[in-house]
Formats: sequence, structure tokens, C-alpha cells
Amino acid sequence: MDRMEGPPDVVVRRLPLYARSLRYLLQEGIESVSSQELGDRINVTAAQIRKDLSYFGEFGKQGIGYDVRKLLQQIEDILGLTQEWPVALIGIGHLGEAIARYEGFRQQGIRIAGLFDSNPAKIGKVIDGMTIQSFEEAERVIREQGIRLAIIAVPARSAQEVADRLVMAGVRAILSYAPTVLQVPEGVWVRYIDPVAILHSMTYYLARDIAGVRHNNPET
Amino acid sequence: MDRMEGPPDVVVRRLPLYARSLRYLLQEGIESVSSQELGDRINVTAAQIRKDLSYFGEFGKQGIGYDVRKLLQQIEDILGLTQEWPVALIGIGHLGEAIARYEGFRQQGIRIAGLFDSNPAKIGKVIDGMTIQSFEEAERVIREQGIRLAIIAVPARSAQEVADRLVMAGVRAILSYAPTVLQVPEGVWVRYIDPVAILHSMTYYLARDIAGVRHNNPET
Repeated sequence: MDRMEGPPDVVVRRLPLYARSLRYLLQEGIESVSSQELGDRINVTAAQIRKDLSYFGEFGKQGIGYDVRKLLQQIEDILGLTQEWPVALIGIGHLGEAIARYEGFRQQGIRIAGLFDSNPAKIGKVIDGMTIQSFEEAERVIREQGIRLAIIAVPARSAQEVADRLVMAGVRAILSYAPTVLQVPEGVWVRYIDPVAILHSMTYYLARDIAGVRHNNPET
Repeated sequence: MDRMEGPPDVVVRRLPLYARSLRYLLQEGIESVSSQELGDRINVTAAQIRKDLSYFGEFGKQGIGYDVRKLLQQIEDILGLTQEWPVALIGIGHLGEAIARYEGFRQQGIRIAGLFDSNPAKIGKVIDGMTIQSFEEAERVIREQGIRLAIIAVPARSAQEVADRLVMAGVRAILSYAPTVLQVPEGVWVRYIDPVAILHSMTYYLARDIAGVRHNNPET
């Protein structure tokens, strides 16, 4: 498996955080940054940043620091964000609607390409200029537009069937908000967002009066 | 640091997923499960489950498997879920409203104790029986009720100030949806949910046609 020779997944997951921080620096008008300064902002050591970036080539110059704009461009290039990724959003309940309206997706390589729901009462409703379509339409749109990314915001009980059909239609990476583990064929990426699980992993510590330090790792 | 002798954080983060899966088993009327069967459902090896649980004592019997109800009770006990945790929810935009309405929090040890927003136009609005209060009220309620958990769903630019004030009022664990790294004093837990960062960590692989297998780890 060639992939194993690439950077560890944990490093890949940190890159978007570096990019995000560099965008904020640019907004603040800061054009040059040391790995120490960048690290301080995101609770990562300077050594970690240098090591993470070393998987992808040479960046910055010893003692001079990074050119913010250039490093951001390079990381966005590494992340594949020089192209725009259309995303199918499935499940337009309260959460799906919030995701559809989320401004954070704009101008960062992600474009919600369509809203889909299986509830006939929702089909035709317009959210932020986009019309909710049926789930059957999702499969057609995914095939026709070659969409490979999807966000699932359906109830847990329907998530597996939705995932199966998305994968059949060509989706290769899923971000699921449904609180259940999806079974997908080899080759398909799935990541999860489950606020309840995250809260429960913190009540563990609160119940024991264990003070936090591990928040220092931004990927957690 | 005593904490270092406890289970690794990654193990603590898997426990809620075990509990969630056990709840589904109970709903399906399944009263006994082997570590293999449990593992198959959540894409974790049987060995991993046994090793994770071994940090907390003896569970199940070799060859017999786990009593689902009992194991769930034990894990909920470990996670501190035998008590109810009131949570302050700060920032009632589209996302905050979806969180306030999310049924997944109910009956799992988490109770949204109050909705708070700094926007005067939102204060007084009722969501699911709860009235949105001012952020000043949040600080008072947190102090009076001894609330230690908070969810932040405010824009990135206000997240740090909100976190500072929450911590001052007594909050010790924060789940933040704001796409920025928070600086908090030692002892405070922070975890993040950032769908954009997660999508960007998958476009990395899609852009390279690297097929997924690492989804096999439910904590990722």
C-alpha cells in the first residue's frame, strides 16, 4: 500500500488548521511568521510544525520564517484546494439547514452543490438560494457532476442506507453527522462529527476532576 | 502529573462510541455480545476493545461475551453519565439553534441548561421551550448552577472572548464549533468541531486518488 509511505493521517488532519491560521494572519495583515509564532497560535510546538511540513517539501528559511501568503498557497495546493470541490448535502433537518447556511464553507475550496432530503414535505423548499431535491435526484446529480464528497446529516437509522447509495453513485469521501459507524467499501473515506461523544469524553475527566492539558493538541 | 498514569485520551474518546453501540444493541433486543461482534459494528478489532476496557477493570467473561446492559451501565458510570451534566450553549445562530433542538443530547447525561446570545434581537426568543438569554445571564447561571460544560457556537472572531468569560465563570470543558484555536488556562478542556477542516483533510486524499482505509478507526 503506497499510502503508508505518505504522511500519517494525523499530519494531514493538521494541515487544514495551519492553513486556517495562515488565513487569519493574512487578514491581520501579517505577511511573515516564524514556526514558533504560528505554533503559539494553534497550540502546536514549532518543532511539530516543521516536522509536519517536512513531509511535503522545503518551506520557509531558517531564521527568516515563512512567507504567510506563499505557505498558505502551498498548503492549499497540497490539500487539493486549488480546485473547487462540490459537495452533496443529504438530510435537511435543523442541522442540515445550518450546514447549508454555514458561511465557513465559502471560498475555501468547498461548494455545497445540492441539498437533498427524502421527505416530500421538504422537497422544493429553498434555502439560501438552493432548492431541496429528492434523494433520487442526489444520485443523479452525483453521477452527472462526478461529485465525490458528501455530508450526511440524516438520522442514525437511515445513515447506512444513504451512505450505501451515495457510494454506489460515486461518492468517495463522507462526512457524517449521524451518530453511528458506517460500513463502507474499501477505498471510501468516512469521518464523523458527534458532539455527544465528544461531550461524553470530557465528562469522563470532569467527573474525576482531572484537569485538561491535552487540548493543546489541535487535532483532538 | 497523575493523569498520565490513567488511560490515554484516545481510549477515553472511544468509550462513548462503545456506549453508543451498546445502546443500539439494547434497542435491537440484543442482551449479550462478544468483543468480536461489538468490534465489527464499529470497525474496531476485538483485541482493541478488550485492551481499551482493561484500563478500567474486568468486563465480560472469556468465551461468554459481555452482558450488554451491564457493560453499558459500567461504561456510562466510567464516563460520569450516571449524573446529568448541564451545558451552557453560547451563540444561537443557525448552528446553535440546531444544537439546541438536537434530540441526540436527551437522555444521555447531557442537558442543555440555557441558551445564550449577545445579540439583543435574539434575546427572549423561545427555542424548544427554552428562552434565549443574554451572555451576561450565562455568566450568572454558570456560577449559580455550577455549570462546568459549555458549547460555543459563536463566530470565530468572538470565540476567544466568550471562552475567557466562560472559564472565569467556572466552565472547565468547552466544545467549540468556532473555527479558531482557543487559548485557555491550564486545567480547562477544549475540543473542536470544524467540518471545513475535516473536509479539507479528505480533499487531500481525493486530489491524489488515495483510497480510504483509515476510516476504520472510529475516533478519526
